[in-house]
Amino acid sequence: MRSGIVTLLTDFGFADYFVGAMKGVILTRSPSATIVDITHSIPPHDIRAAAFILNGAYSCFPAGSIHLAVVDPGVGSDRRPIVVETSKYIFVGPDNGLFSIVLQRLPEAQVRHVTNSKYFLPSLSSTFHGRDLFAPVAAALASGLSPEALGPIVKDPIRLGFAQNELTTDGSVLGTIIHVDYFGNCVTSFEPEKFPALLAGQRFCLSVKEINIRTLRKHYAEVAANADEPFLVAGSAGYLEISLQCSSAARELKITVGEPLRLVLEPNSQGNRERARVRV
Amino acid sequence: MRSGIVTLLTDFGFADYFVGAMKGVILTRSPSATIVDITHSIPPHDIRAAAFILNGAYSCFPAGSIHLAVVDPGVGSDRRPIVVETSKYIFVGPDNGLFSIVLQRLPEAQVRHVTNSKYFLPSLSSTFHGRDLFAPVAAALASGLSPEALGPIVKDPIRLGFAQNELTTDGSVLGTIIHVDYFGNCVTSFEPEKFPALLAGQRFCLSVKEINIRTLRKHYAEVAANADEPFLVAGSAGYLEISLQCSSAARELKITVGEPLRLVLEPNSQGNRERARVRV
Amino acid sequence: MRSGIVTLLTDFGFADYFVGAMKGVILTRSPSATIVDITHSIPPHDIRAAAFILNGAYSCFPAGSIHLAVVDPGVGSDRRPIVVETSKYIFVGPDNGLFSIVLQRLPEAQVRHVTNSKYFLPSLSSTFHGRDLFAPVAAALASGLSPEALGPIVKDPIRLGFAQNELTTDGSVLGTIIHVDYFGNCVTSFEPEKFPALLAGQRFCLSVKEINIRTLRKHYAEVAANADEPFLVAGSAGYLEISLQCSSAARELKITVGEPLRLVLEPNSQGNRERARVRV
Repeated sequence: MRSGIVTLLTDFGFADYFVGAMKGVILTRSPSATIVDITHSIPPHDIRAAAFILNGAYSCFPAGSIHLAVVDPGVGSDRRPIVVETSKYIFVGPDNGLFSIVLQRLPEAQVRHVTNSKYFLPSLSSTFHGRDLFAPVAAALASGLSPEALGPIVKDPIRLGFAQNELTTDGSVLGTIIHVDYFGNCVTSFEPEKFPALLAGQRFCLSVKEINIRTLRKHYAEVAANADEPFLVAGSAGYLEISLQCSSAARELKITVGEPLRLVLEPNSQGNRERARVRV
Repeated sequence: MRSGIVTLLTDFGFADYFVGAMKGVILTRSPSATIVDITHSIPPHDIRAAAFILNGAYSCFPAGSIHLAVVDPGVGSDRRPIVVETSKYIFVGPDNGLFSIVLQRLPEAQVRHVTNSKYFLPSLSSTFHGRDLFAPVAAALASGLSPEALGPIVKDPIRLGFAQNELTTDGSVLGTIIHVDYFGNCVTSFEPEKFPALLAGQRFCLSVKEINIRTLRKHYAEVAANADEPFLVAGSAGYLEISLQCSSAARELKITVGEPLRLVLEPNSQGNRERARVRV
Repeated sequence: MRSGIVTLLTDFGFADYFVGAMKGVILTRSPSATIVDITHSIPPHDIRAAAFILNGAYSCFPAGSIHLAVVDPGVGSDRRPIVVETSKYIFVGPDNGLFSIVLQRLPEAQVRHVTNSKYFLPSLSSTFHGRDLFAPVAAALASGLSPEALGPIVKDPIRLGFAQNELTTDGSVLGTIIHVDYFGNCVTSFEPEKFPALLAGQRFCLSVKEINIRTLRKHYAEVAANADEPFLVAGSAGYLEISLQCSSAARELKITVGEPLRLVLEPNSQGNRERARVRV
């Protein structure tokens, strides 16, 4: 029931031998594996960025795929290597919060501590578990190994908070920028399906820094009176995004990850705020 | 008659989840597809750069390959998704000029408007047709779907002018820089086979900015009296290029895409300009 | 006895059509080949960096893999295209020192000058042998061609010196920085197995620039009294590395490739320097 696919997501960059070495190990241990790069350009040691990008890609793959993610500042220390088994996929990587969104979205997930060194390379280094531990374990899983064989269940994997918004007493919602994408779109912590009134056309104001955004667009190229104005759009990763039509919103508005946000739904024509429809 | 190969060319970068998501969709819909990256580093929204780079790579692939190209500033608007069927390949992407050189080189090409949503992902976003529309359509084509099934013929695909030179009354040829490559070689709009006299050794002068280039070399490392001097070379993409031996001509000479050029073939020893041999 | 795998290592970048063109040629000539990128981000023309990175990756691949490496400033000149056949792998590329470490580590290697143009593309350019010569030759080898068929044996392939240390009369060892990795770890020319006393805990001092390093750590995240201090670690490429816990040692300490190093093993508790245990 395995697809044979092993996806890779690391902060190893594309410029060094690290990724090639991992791929070589996988293909040695599982010659028929299909290796697919998600990215290797996670900012060094940025576990949150890795968790977000993994979340944007993993569910597009065939059932039975192995998702190998290695952003691992604690390599060689006693941080646990883990596998996360869900109904469709198996994830492999260090227990440092990398799989926080996966664990949040897939509550059936079963986590195991990878302790069975039988599946590691014979000479395990202290500095490159991507090659010596995670790659051969992923290869074994791609070839059909059951996660059970790797080690005991973990009840307390590390979970980082993501996209946790706060409803204030005056009815506004406080959130944050959780990701800046390659085009400079600023991904907010607000999931559009939690704001049906906003999607249905209710007036709103999203405040970020000194800027108030009051426009929701269907897509980036929508014809607009003022092409220079920032707008909201329901982005492809499942969150509202702050965008500019022809340039990077992050660069132009100087927005970075962690920037606080305030979203207020304005009174509609009937004069009553539809606070009840906001589920944070 | 399909090779199973799907090539990808986008401006999505290698750093985000976009490319991984597209690959996941393709492998879900066409599990035996072989995915090959041409590049994902097209400068954002630079349709001309994408058309040039696609042109440099597509014809190296086996017959029956699908070439998926997504540089798509108009995503979600009414720009048409198209397939371009030629005798050897099928191209998929937005109708915005991306396939201009292909259409110019392969006049047998038949273009179709992709309207049959049966082949899209069930939840089509307005911001990521690479994942939701183009990837599954490419996968269907790689698995053998006939382009006919996708939609009606388009008679007026968008065509951008490329490498269109002008012969002046004084016999010089006006052109432009159409691409700057990764090494800083400046690709001109002049195809060497249109200038047989130049290749055969006739004296010439190519003027760019304040610089006059009078040397044609066989290759970059040819021994030269003056290693610092820019020279012309017949480049691997099928155009004359302005190069420097050990550094980036674009950086040193401050040349960018669009820079105007003037090429003059000098009178030969018989004193008559071989204007007749210039076919622009 | 071929794995079908062709690895690629070039300085062509990921941004242009060069890599896509090479992959297309390989898949045309050897449709069942599995192509694996090691990297395309070698600094332009940096043969030493290419040799180091190739060395870090090649031995992870299955026996019978073809390693294609093209960093080729001399393309089109009379530099020789070569194949290097070893007991497990075949390497293909220009004869300019790219395979220096491979030749040093694998003395059984047999080198051949690739002269049989039957395996080249019919129209061999002077500027892109990666596509026109090396890619089709690698494809032929991946499909089972014997290196013998390609050309005569070469006795004098170009060898660049790597990691050649010097023992001084006062018992210190002089070396150099041979690579700076993607994370800014500075790889020294010192192989840990040549310094067993150091690994076993003997006091040492490694001097680089004005800095004296006296700490050896097991891994990057080891708890330390002073987290800001540079330390040595036995790196995954088989050399001691100079590292910082949370940042780039190369950037913070302004270390680049070629930086000279002096390693002194301090007198141990018995008062006698263990010079005899140093094998440079």
